[in-house]
Amino acid sequence: MRLRNKPWVKDEMRTFDNLLEEPETYKGRWAEWFHNDHPIQIELGTGKGNFITTLAEKNPDLNYLGVEVREEVLVYAVRKAKQKNLENISFLWFNVEKIEQCFNPGEVSRIYLNFSDPWPKSRHAKRRLTHASFLEKYKQILLPGKEIHMKTDNEKLFEFSLNELSHAGFQLKNITLDLHQSDYMEAREVMTEYEQKFVERGMKIYRLEAAWMGDK
Amino acid sequence: MRLRNKPWVKDEMRTFDNLLEEPETYKGRWAEWFHNDHPIQIELGTGKGNFITTLAEKNPDLNYLGVEVREEVLVYAVRKAKQKNLENISFLWFNVEKIEQCFNPGEVSRIYLNFSDPWPKSRHAKRRLTHASFLEKYKQILLPGKEIHMKTDNEKLFEFSLNELSHAGFQLKNITLDLHQSDYMEAREVMTEYEQKFVERGMKIYRLEAAWMGDK
Repeated sequence: MRLRNKPWVKDEMRTFDNLLEEPETYKGRWAEWFHNDHPIQIELGTGKGNFITTLAEKNPDLNYLGVEVREEVLVYAVRKAKQKNLENISFLWFNVEKIEQCFNPGEVSRIYLNFSDPWPKSRHAKRRLTHASFLEKYKQILLPGKEIHMKTDNEKLFEFSLNELSHAGFQLKNITLDLHQSDYMEAREVMTEYEQKFVERGMKIYRLEAAWMGDK
Repeated sequence: MRLRNKPWVKDEMRTFDNLLEEPETYKGRWAEWFHNDHPIQIELGTGKGNFITTLAEKNPDLNYLGVEVREEVLVYAVRKAKQKNLENISFLWFNVEKIEQCFNPGEVSRIYLNFSDPWPKSRHAKRRLTHASFLEKYKQILLPGKEIHMKTDNEKLFEFSLNELSHAGFQLKNITLDLHQSDYMEAREVMTEYEQKFVERGMKIYRLEAAWMGDK
């Protein structure tokens, strides 16, 4: 059953205490929200949340925030984290375009971009989450030396992202053009919902890490 | 007919005045060899020379040097350049491993690596022409701001090269995972012998440019 345009989804969402509708109010105060000062990793476009809830389970000493604007998928992520009683994860019901409004400089220790919309048409390039204009926002919230980790099945988006990240001064590493035939065991373990389907079909997954080296 | 182990190949080679067997003697004096001070671009592993002779024909205001240690292919390149009466190209019958002995710092304005041997086994990684140890040699001879242009059909070599180049401080750009479906018209035009065959078979060609930004 698709949940789009089901008004009760929004009502259900609002019963969860791990969901923030106005996350800007915690800018600079995320340690208060989590009741600790552990590093914060965020996933932009969290979808149904399999990836980030799995990470949160594996790493209780890190805090996680999943950002997603579409309530019809986000509700699954929120439920999942609740069912697992995870204390170190919350969700921002929020548009990634305004992400820099939610964090102080250096407040984010890692950004995950998983299977972002490729926006294949050139005139939509600005909407891709690795477009230069988004990278400028990420630089504002990432601590220098910290990283963006990206996975996608889309060759063109990956190619675009390699170029945009390199141009913006990120240092690329651990690039693989076929993750599930690679030696990156840890990165292979934690999969998104999309990724599980793609891998079952034998499709290739591209992955990179990009370290923000700070302004020269 | 294969030319390997044909002693007359070496004899024929030595009749050409566009071939250098001891190129170290021109280190720092390439302007003397070419009778001008035009920028010098080099191709490492020139093979039968289609790529670099095509470039030399197109760009009379640049000088070209093709480096190749295997005389059984190099002889074709040397003949080709002679038949076309190209004055702005010569060949180094020389091992790429010692390339830094042939040029002063900054004497090379661009390095081309086309369809280099992928050396697929891990224990042979050091032989790949984009291994960190080779990149250190290239840094010694490239002017800062100048570039390495690389093409290959081998996914694993390309992946390796992206990582090595980024780690070594080169800034990557114009990366494509499918050159002949891309908008890089100029890079598509000049093809190596291998490339022509691969493209006819519909195989993908990977390409990148990597600018050496100089020591920080």
